Amino acid sequence: MLGIDPGSRITGYGIIDSDGIKSIHVASGCIRIGHEAFPERLGAIYRQLSELVATYQPAEMAIEQVFMAKNASSALKLGQARGAAICACVVAGLPVFEYAPRAVKQTVVGSGSADKDQVQHMIRHILQLDEPLTADQSDALAVAISHAHANSTLQLIGRSRRGGWR
Amino acid sequence: MLGIDPGSRITGYGIIDSDGIKSIHVASGCIRIGHEAFPERLGAIYRQLSELVATYQPAEMAIEQVFMAKNASSALKLGQARGAAICACVVAGLPVFEYAPRAVKQTVVGSGSADKDQVQHMIRHILQLDEPLTADQSDALAVAISHAHANSTLQLIGRSRRGGWR
Repeated sequence: MLGIDPGSRITGYGIIDSDGIKSIHVASGCIRIGHEAFPERLGAIYRQLSELVATYQPAEMAIEQVFMAKNASSALKLGQARGAAICACVVAGLPVFEYAPRAVKQTVVGSGSADKDQVQHMIRHILQLDEPLTADQSDALAVAISHAHANSTLQLIGRSRRGGWR
Repeated sequence: MLGIDPGSRITGYGIIDSDGIKSIHVASGCIRIGHEAFPERLGAIYRQLSELVATYQPAEMAIEQVFMAKNASSALKLGQARGAAICACVVAGLPVFEYAPRAVKQTVVGSGSADKDQVQHMIRHILQLDEPLTADQSDALAVAISHAHANSTLQLIGRSRRGGWR
C-alpha cells in the first residue's frame, strides 16, 4: 500500500506491506520541493512518485479527502499538488482510494479527533519504528494503514469491494 | 504553441503555429471527461494532453493564471485538473508560461474587460476560422495567441526571456 499526504511544498509518502492485521514499514519520507518555479514543482512530485511506484510496486494508493481548505488560494495550490500526485499513480495503473481525515484518525488512534502527536505515536507503535517521523510522513503512513485495515475488514465481511474509484 | 484552459469537467486546448505576427490554427478542441471516478478524470486529462503533445510537438505551453476561484471547493477541483494538465506538459519537457486573464483579453481583443463572445469573435477572425468555437476552445486558443504575441514582442525589443518558469 502507498499512502500519500500531498502539499504544495512537501508531499509525504508511506509504503507499507500489510495483511490488514499486521503492517510492516517498507519505506516512507517526504518529497521536498525547493525553489523551483511552480510547474517544475508539480513535475517533481509527479516524477518522484512515479519512481517510488516503479521501485516498490504498491498494489493500491490511499489519500486523505480534503473537506475544507483554508481559502480558495491555498485550495488551488493544494489541488495542483494533489492532481500531480494522483496522476502519477493513475497513470501507473494504481487504483486510488480516498479516506476522510476523521476515519483515518479513528482507525489509527481510535478517536476521530486525535491530534498529530497521537497519530505519530500510534504509527510508530503499529509499525515498530524507533526513529521519529515528520508530520507528513506520519500522515502518509496513517492513510496507508487505514486503507489496509479497511481492505481487511471488507474481506472479513465477505464483500469484494475492490478497485476504489476505478 | 499549445494553449490550455483546464477545468474539472472540460479542458480546452488550442495549438497554433505562429511567428508572433501571423498565427495559423493547427488543432483545437476539448477534452471532455465523462462520468469516470475523479482520479480517472485526472488521468484522462494527463493522458490525452500527453498524446496531443506527442502528436503536434509544440515548443511551449501557455495557460491562464487563476486569480480568484469562486470558493475553496471549486478551487480544489480546478487545481487538481490544472495540476494534471501542467504535469503532462512539464514531464514532456515543455516550458510553461502563465498569463493573467486580463492580459490575454487585452492582447486578443484590445480590452482587458472583453467578454467571451468578443474573445471568440476575434479568435475566429485572427485564425480565419469559419466554424464556431466552444468557449473552452476559444479561451485555449486565446492564451496561445497571447503567448505567441508576447514572445514576438520580447524578440523585437531584443530581450532573450526564454523558458518561462524553467
